[in-house]
Amino acid sequence: MQVTITEVASRDGLQNESHPVSTAQKIELIDRIARSGMTRFEVTSFVSPRAVPALADAEEVVKGLPNRAGLIVEALVPNLRGAERAAALGLDEWVCFASASESHSQANSNTSTQEALNRLKPVIDLARQEGVVPVGAIATSFGCPFEGDVPVTRVVEVARRMTDMGVETIKLGDTIGTAWPSRVRELVRAMRSALPDTTLVLHFHNTRDMSLANVLTGIAEGVDRYESALGGVGGCPFAPGATGNVSTEDLVHFLHLEGHDTGLDLGALIEAGHWFETVLDRKLPAHLLRASPVGTTTALAEMKRAAG
Amino acid sequence: MQVTITEVASRDGLQNESHPVSTAQKIELIDRIARSGMTRFEVTSFVSPRAVPALADAEEVVKGLPNRAGLIVEALVPNLRGAERAAALGLDEWVCFASASESHSQANSNTSTQEALNRLKPVIDLARQEGVVPVGAIATSFGCPFEGDVPVTRVVEVARRMTDMGVETIKLGDTIGTAWPSRVRELVRAMRSALPDTTLVLHFHNTRDMSLANVLTGIAEGVDRYESALGGVGGCPFAPGATGNVSTEDLVHFLHLEGHDTGLDLGALIEAGHWFETVLDRKLPAHLLRASPVGTTTALAEMKRAAG
Repeated sequence: MQVTITEVASRDGLQNESHPVSTAQKIELIDRIARSGMTRFEVTSFVSPRAVPALADAEEVVKGLPNRAGLIVEALVPNLRGAERAAALGLDEWVCFASASESHSQANSNTSTQEALNRLKPVIDLARQEGVVPVGAIATSFGCPFEGDVPVTRVVEVARRMTDMGVETIKLGDTIGTAWPSRVRELVRAMRSALPDTTLVLHFHNTRDMSLANVLTGIAEGVDRYESALGGVGGCPFAPGATGNVSTEDLVHFLHLEGHDTGLDLGALIEAGHWFETVLDRKLPAHLLRASPVGTTTALAEMKRAAG
Repeated sequence: MQVTITEVASRDGLQNESHPVSTAQKIELIDRIARSGMTRFEVTSFVSPRAVPALADAEEVVKGLPNRAGLIVEALVPNLRGAERAAALGLDEWVCFASASESHSQANSNTSTQEALNRLKPVIDLARQEGVVPVGAIATSFGCPFEGDVPVTRVVEVARRMTDMGVETIKLGDTIGTAWPSRVRELVRAMRSALPDTTLVLHFHNTRDMSLANVLTGIAEGVDRYESALGGVGGCPFAPGATGNVSTEDLVHFLHLEGHDTGLDLGALIEAGHWFETVLDRKLPAHLLRASPVGTTTALAEMKRAAG
């Protein structure tokens, strides 16, 4: 299967990052990942700089992107104020989000799910007016840190509200890494049944080590779009315990072994991951930054790595 | 599905461990895990103490087990000399192994796969004579650190040699964590086709984060026996890069979410895992030692953990 990955390290990966990352480093991060053949990036978020200081340089990052024409640039646009900032920049897609769980919606956006959805309408309208593709994203699609289980029917209801506003692509966010395979299957089937024309994107966190099993299930259900973050960085600042997106290196390695085509060069991703570790000054969770890709006879390389 | 797990922390988990673990601590480890309802343990290995000093106390550990009658005690028995040591102890099962890869066989046992298999014959005969169940284990079933790919036909050939000697259960060891789902499916189907009466046990390492996806595939193929190590400790001393068995905590959590019955109490395993971290004096890789089980509303607990 042809699988498309959206790289989210510079947005979901960095929004909760305590180590300072300069604008130039963010641009270099995207550029290094792009060398692998990655074209889709959720680059940043036009949230209030007070709410997420780490992404206060949203405009500068977008403006600084090299090879802008070769990329599909997405950004989170939470409200009309963010939309006005984004509109000047000529992005390809605006990601408009709501939380399926009331408690997470309150913690994340200080508003109810209903009101969050109401606020999306003018943003989506403006996107269309600007010739930008509006995309919906549903946080806590597979569970909430405050409420626990989030019913499938609730997620489908939120998605339907978004598609009613004209959104054709929906990202299902496993915000705190609580998705498991049979729930993934259940939600994907419910979405397909209720909204057969909607494109699905799955966004998993590896908090409980289930993300690749979830991807395997998504693939079996025919979902061909996933999000991941280089190094496995990330986590939502308003969802305690939401550590670590599925890492791009591990995801691509896994998909290739399973015979799928991502169009990406794993070696270039691993190289970028090692560079990213020097930027953040720590080991990152991606397993492929420690272990060699399957199929290589790398005993010597690994012995050296273990020794060094 | 009813799924049976064999706990291997005190054998595979500790054989390569650099932090000293006393005999009393090993016994306590098994006892604490047993409180979760775990009954099957690969307790130790009767290898030469010179080759694996960390397991030199094999006899003492077995003799010291409390509630011995309630446990199914397995141990690795690599040769006739090990068998003679084991025979005095009244174990339930002897695990007799060979490596599917020639290079790993040489590195691990200083002998060819063929010769390793020849040496199993008298051990298996002695097991039967002693009323002990002989079990076969095939190292590098899914890849070798020296040779890379290990053909499925090769693994089946080694398994057939073992079953010809009277072994009825075969453990397929993913020694260096290179198994991926479609290869798991391929090997399980090939084994089933060639040796339909043989019970299969899958033993995965999480080196490349694929172990739960592999378990998902094993389950889909009807395999109901797995091995794991508390905390996700482990690694073969003669296979560079072979870090980390799939962790018992993460495996049990995953299986329960998928609706399978392990008969185990996840809370007791997590408690044992935290104790094991104090013994080894480091954080262990099991994700459930950091994140709470799915389905609990644990925001406060996780915020406290993140802060502490």
